Amino acid sequence: MPHFQFHLDHTDANSMARVGRWDTPHGTVETPAFMPVGTRGSVKGVWPHQLQEVGAQMILANTYHLALRPGEKVVKELGGLHRFMNWNGPILTDSGGFQIFSLTELRQLDNDKVVFKSHVDGSLLELTPARAMQIQEDLGADCIMCLDECPPHDAPVSRLEEAVDRTTRWAQLCRDSHQREDQALFGIVQGATNPKLRERSAQGLLPLEFPGYAVGGLSVGEAPEEMYSTLDVTTPMLPVNKPRYLMGVGRPIDIIEGVLRGIDLFDCVMPTRNARNATAFTSQGKIKMRNLKHQTDTGPLDPECDCPTCTDYSRGFMRHLFTVGEMLGPMLLSVHNLAFYQKVVRELKTAIMANAGMEYRAEFLARTSGGK
Amino acid sequence: MPHFQFHLDHTDANSMARVGRWDTPHGTVETPAFMPVGTRGSVKGVWPHQLQEVGAQMILANTYHLALRPGEKVVKELGGLHRFMNWNGPILTDSGGFQIFSLTELRQLDNDKVVFKSHVDGSLLELTPARAMQIQEDLGADCIMCLDECPPHDAPVSRLEEAVDRTTRWAQLCRDSHQREDQALFGIVQGATNPKLRERSAQGLLPLEFPGYAVGGLSVGEAPEEMYSTLDVTTPMLPVNKPRYLMGVGRPIDIIEGVLRGIDLFDCVMPTRNARNATAFTSQGKIKMRNLKHQTDTGPLDPECDCPTCTDYSRGFMRHLFTVGEMLGPMLLSVHNLAFYQKVVRELKTAIMANAGMEYRAEFLARTSGGK
Repeated sequence: MPHFQFHLDHTDANSMARVGRWDTPHGTVETPAFMPVGTRGSVKGVWPHQLQEVGAQMILANTYHLALRPGEKVVKELGGLHRFMNWNGPILTDSGGFQIFSLTELRQLDNDKVVFKSHVDGSLLELTPARAMQIQEDLGADCIMCLDECPPHDAPVSRLEEAVDRTTRWAQLCRDSHQREDQALFGIVQGATNPKLRERSAQGLLPLEFPGYAVGGLSVGEAPEEMYSTLDVTTPMLPVNKPRYLMGVGRPIDIIEGVLRGIDLFDCVMPTRNARNATAFTSQGKIKMRNLKHQTDTGPLDPECDCPTCTDYSRGFMRHLFTVGEMLGPMLLSVHNLAFYQKVVRELKTAIMANAGMEYRAEFLARTSGGK
Repeated sequence: MPHFQFHLDHTDANSMARVGRWDTPHGTVETPAFMPVGTRGSVKGVWPHQLQEVGAQMILANTYHLALRPGEKVVKELGGLHRFMNWNGPILTDSGGFQIFSLTELRQLDNDKVVFKSHVDGSLLELTPARAMQIQEDLGADCIMCLDECPPHDAPVSRLEEAVDRTTRWAQLCRDSHQREDQALFGIVQGATNPKLRERSAQGLLPLEFPGYAVGGLSVGEAPEEMYSTLDVTTPMLPVNKPRYLMGVGRPIDIIEGVLRGIDLFDCVMPTRNARNATAFTSQGKIKMRNLKHQTDTGPLDPECDCPTCTDYSRGFMRHLFTVGEMLGPMLLSVHNLAFYQKVVRELKTAIMANAGMEYRAEFLARTSGGK
């Protein structure tokens, strides 16, 4: 694909972690990369230029939410997702599969389509692989996803196997109907935490030669160790020279563990959602901003952080904002939490270049009380 | 007062409007000036540096709200209001009088004090003139207000007269107990829409020689014409060479009408409150952002505006944000509405310098459907 080039600069001598650059039509993403999530076309509480300021290079938007409101045709009329959101860097959209299987009431599911009730107004909607492609082409992200089926992680094996096979079939149909050459279409490996099913999924998708592969169906309720061991068997099956994206993950420690296992791209609502719930990620671990102990603390949230929030605001002021329910509290903390995620990824890159990815994890765990 | 100098640069040949500069310990305010309101230490939905970017020079914070939460001692421990809010320009605090008489349940009111129930937790609190000074000294704003009594505008004359006299008495007590020389203490003229009472109030306060005077008790439910006619009789009684502040006003047209009657300072929650309710102020009048007609509008909110919102975002995107309830909607619109208010004041200044304040009002009314 002329629009997309993935270069690996270095692979850690002591882990599968790698540092690379991914060229897209809207700029280069340095990997590993964490993508802030703009579910409905906005990363909650943050101006797009602030995402850039804290170092985000690529962001994610959700197909399901945008297809419902305002509708992909409206986004298209408003100039496509980049113009719509005022984000001129690379964007990734998911397929909507995850939301359909987690947010909606299913009415019908077969090899051709899924029929479900909108969580907004209860209307009956249908999604097919071809329609998932049409929506994502109208939205116009740089990187788009095949429609996948996401059963509960603890579903019976027969059910998980069915979902893997349907995901493979749908991937073929997506690839066949996808037109835009300025979009990279990724296949999604499913199979929950079952190594055999992960292998079955990867073997079904690899012949389709997608320009990148996502790992789906993780961080959906299984224990972190199960996620890590699933990655241990899954990423080695994926092409070395293509970007690998772990969907919807996760805590900072999960990102570190994912990178050490060869993952390049991540997305998660956690930095912004936790910010709205008054939880800060810091170089010393998590902090609850409503705690009385911050009341007269004139120090910054995180002395190791140089984001606008830590530069200009005291813990005491931030505690006050959350106590009285001022919007500025979530706004300040979202910027900081996103800056923190970007900093972790930057530090990790530096460590990998020195073949010290494993040491970085140990150091991170030591200073953040086990990454909690 | 060495810390405060008020210079009049020009008075409109055809109205009482004037252009001046007011030096304060935290910088010079060009008057007429509109102050965004940071009720609880934050102008809702806006980063402080954005206030500066749209041209605000001075902001307001509310004594009543900050005294309840986090408490003035906490603000003081956190370095005072400027450091607390991260606003290094001039700040004005009101006395708390207006909130006590509008938000709380009164328990006792005499010549020495007012006792009321906190609207936050129902606890019984007492405010005296001396305590209003102590709180505002601890908060540390540049300009502070005497404790005043604000009865309903349609109260019986005897009740209004009582409030005027108590406000005068309290002003004397405030002046006597106020210590900080880096704070300008203003007296507040009361008297509702009754010219005789306004005169009585002014005559009581003028001998106290405050460095500036506020006009209180307006924009509290009376008709706009009543407010204007009250200003017609009130501002001529106030010293020409001192700043005059019209409290809690108002719509853009009210600010224009106030300036034409000799007012220098204004504050109002309207630009940010309306923004949260999806109402935009524009050069062509008010716009409801949820209206379906904006759905696929690729144009800016206000083509005449160069604020960050109008520069980078479409009406269609903003409508979407309000439709789905994204925080970014109020954030973008608050910045624009504040920019609009600042622009009106800037344009008005230019007009006054050309002795064309009245023409500016006519032109403003013509293009905004009567200022509605």
